[in-house]
Amino acid sequence: MSWSSNPHSDRPGTVRRTIVPTADGAAVEVIDQTRLPHQLVMVRLQTLEQAAAAIQDMVVRGAPLIGVTAAYAMWLGLRTGGTDDVAIQGMRARLLATRPTAVNLRWALDQVIAAIMPLAPDQRAAAARRRADALVAEDVAICAAIGKHGLPILRAAFHAAGEDRPVQVLTHCNAGFLAAIEWGTALAPIYRARDEGIPVHVWVDETRPRNQGGALTAWEMAQAGIPHTVIADNAGGHLMQRGKVDLCLVGSDRTTARGDVCNKIGTYLKALAARAHGVPFYVGLPGPTIDFDVGDGLAEIPIEERQGAEVRRARGRLVAATGSDEAGLATVELLPPSTPVFNPAFDVTPAALVTALITERGVCAATREALAALYPDRAGRGR
Amino acid sequence: MSWSSNPHSDRPGTVRRTIVPTADGAAVEVIDQTRLPHQLVMVRLQTLEQAAAAIQDMVVRGAPLIGVTAAYAMWLGLRTGGTDDVAIQGMRARLLATRPTAVNLRWALDQVIAAIMPLAPDQRAAAARRRADALVAEDVAICAAIGKHGLPILRAAFHAAGEDRPVQVLTHCNAGFLAAIEWGTALAPIYRARDEGIPVHVWVDETRPRNQGGALTAWEMAQAGIPHTVIADNAGGHLMQRGKVDLCLVGSDRTTARGDVCNKIGTYLKALAARAHGVPFYVGLPGPTIDFDVGDGLAEIPIEERQGAEVRRARGRLVAATGSDEAGLATVELLPPSTPVFNPAFDVTPAALVTALITERGVCAATREALAALYPDRAGRGR
Repeated sequence: MSWSSNPHSDRPGTVRRTIVPTADGAAVEVIDQTRLPHQLVMVRLQTLEQAAAAIQDMVVRGAPLIGVTAAYAMWLGLRTGGTDDVAIQGMRARLLATRPTAVNLRWALDQVIAAIMPLAPDQRAAAARRRADALVAEDVAICAAIGKHGLPILRAAFHAAGEDRPVQVLTHCNAGFLAAIEWGTALAPIYRARDEGIPVHVWVDETRPRNQGGALTAWEMAQAGIPHTVIADNAGGHLMQRGKVDLCLVGSDRTTARGDVCNKIGTYLKALAARAHGVPFYVGLPGPTIDFDVGDGLAEIPIEERQGAEVRRARGRLVAATGSDEAGLATVELLPPSTPVFNPAFDVTPAALVTALITERGVCAATREALAALYPDRAGRGR
Repeated sequence: MSWSSNPHSDRPGTVRRTIVPTADGAAVEVIDQTRLPHQLVMVRLQTLEQAAAAIQDMVVRGAPLIGVTAAYAMWLGLRTGGTDDVAIQGMRARLLATRPTAVNLRWALDQVIAAIMPLAPDQRAAAARRRADALVAEDVAICAAIGKHGLPILRAAFHAAGEDRPVQVLTHCNAGFLAAIEWGTALAPIYRARDEGIPVHVWVDETRPRNQGGALTAWEMAQAGIPHTVIADNAGGHLMQRGKVDLCLVGSDRTTARGDVCNKIGTYLKALAARAHGVPFYVGLPGPTIDFDVGDGLAEIPIEERQGAEVRRARGRLVAATGSDEAGLATVELLPPSTPVFNPAFDVTPAALVTALITERGVCAATREALAALYPDRAGRGR
């Protein structure tokens, strides 16, 4: 089984999407992202609880994919659980609790619920499925558009650097197609640049504690043949100080009405370093991750605290004493279980540190005015 | 076997120092720091090559301990290898190559060589041993003095915070007694504060890729009963943004004549965050790590690049499928061996970001003038 990031690929045997409804009409299949980069394994989800656990345990992760998985989870819940209003509210609450920071988890759930509530209970499951399918189509279109709008930024950086070396991009965590359905958000412009022949080299932050950069982004880049180098999260300041980074390009789990960006823990440190060295700091994000109900990201966004075991432990392929490649995946304790740990999952990068936001509607400044101009249909609700 | 950070402890069975000459007069014993925090194991070094490998593989690490180990390595080399001038230069070159960034590796070697070169070859081994023993005594005195001079900073922070909660200190990597002989450098003031009854809580950066913070600093703090919490390196910016850090306190592998600080990779990102949030950034360092021959740390300090396997792999206690506590240490590959990796070991924090330097001679600003005033005997050689 191999992966294609190109949605137009029809090579047999290639996995084209991170989430796919099964042919039997009773489940969805997702890539188990906790096994990458070592194993590419699809997991079948056929109940709401299985889907909720997949979100909570980060079998699926990334704002767009979480939203879509939650939408399909509603469909699964309506198929296998109750369909009345009380049951629906219970399903919504269960799914919302999986990842409290992810704004388009809530957005996707509300989309599905708005679509089904006017209907008779026996019509709701099918309607939820249709809405989830539509969210998939919308997300693919959104990510493709982010790629299109971000491409000129990479092209301009290539020209500015003299066109004799790759554009040096630093990214944090994973905002590639594994975080979405196809293309990805922050990485979409990089895929587009590859398709256009603009050479890009990606510095991939490892992104402890869960290593989504090393495990997922580097895997994506390798699959796509895009030059990349994994670095410890500690190295980014040094690289920017030495002029080795032309621009930073990261995703966003939640963006406020004024342009504050809540993204994977550690994003903020890179934004500070970028500012200190005049390195542009771009954020690629789908419109649904903008929360127009929130202005001040620092004061208003609750930061999910995840279990300390993520910091205390690391998981990978066991290096056998014999050097065998057949060794399976294993978990090691870096720290004794008694070691106190604090594990915030996200941080907030204030809008002032963001050079520009790359959305499906275009590139804009990280300001309330610019976001309102791009999203006049939604910004009215903001403060 | 247990550890005592208190040099005045004579409890039987306690390990009192990171490096100890053996009673048979033929070797030194060191703690194998690659096995902490899981196992406390002493390793016998009885040849120069064994000692060089111990430095290179980070069985011993930390600027002061590296210097002292190299000094004993010269003694071992003179005992077991040649004692003529050519042999000595070869030993020096071998040891210098182990850790190119560590300035007091060179300093310690030069101390030993200056002491032995005037002597007849058959007197050199014994003289090297005496000089190494003297370096140990000096280092213990230096670290104790750093603790003494740093204590008022923690006391003042405790008062400033209202005396009703612990002082919140963030540290990076390990600059404790494991990095030295006793007390440590940056952590010495924290041990002194504990002895004085000033409550301190330490945020311990994990410090990828080698996890010296999680593995060594947290172990030291636990042994000493000092409250601490391990965080991913990514979390420090978030903590400072939320007002959870009163001051940063780190060590230095090499400090320039103007006060630039070369320390473990990632230090610079924390210094930038500290500046952004008005958090004082202190560096505890022994005088021998000051390189008065270097002014501009960015332009002049070569940054050691270590092997990519440090980033690709993690080592810890295997979590057995049965949950057994008896499982041994194991290494897992976080990333496939084919993943490109860049692994710079240090970065340079410009003097302008350093609030003050805490040395064995007192606290001073990170400026050429202040350092020259503290070290008039050495600064004359600088530019």
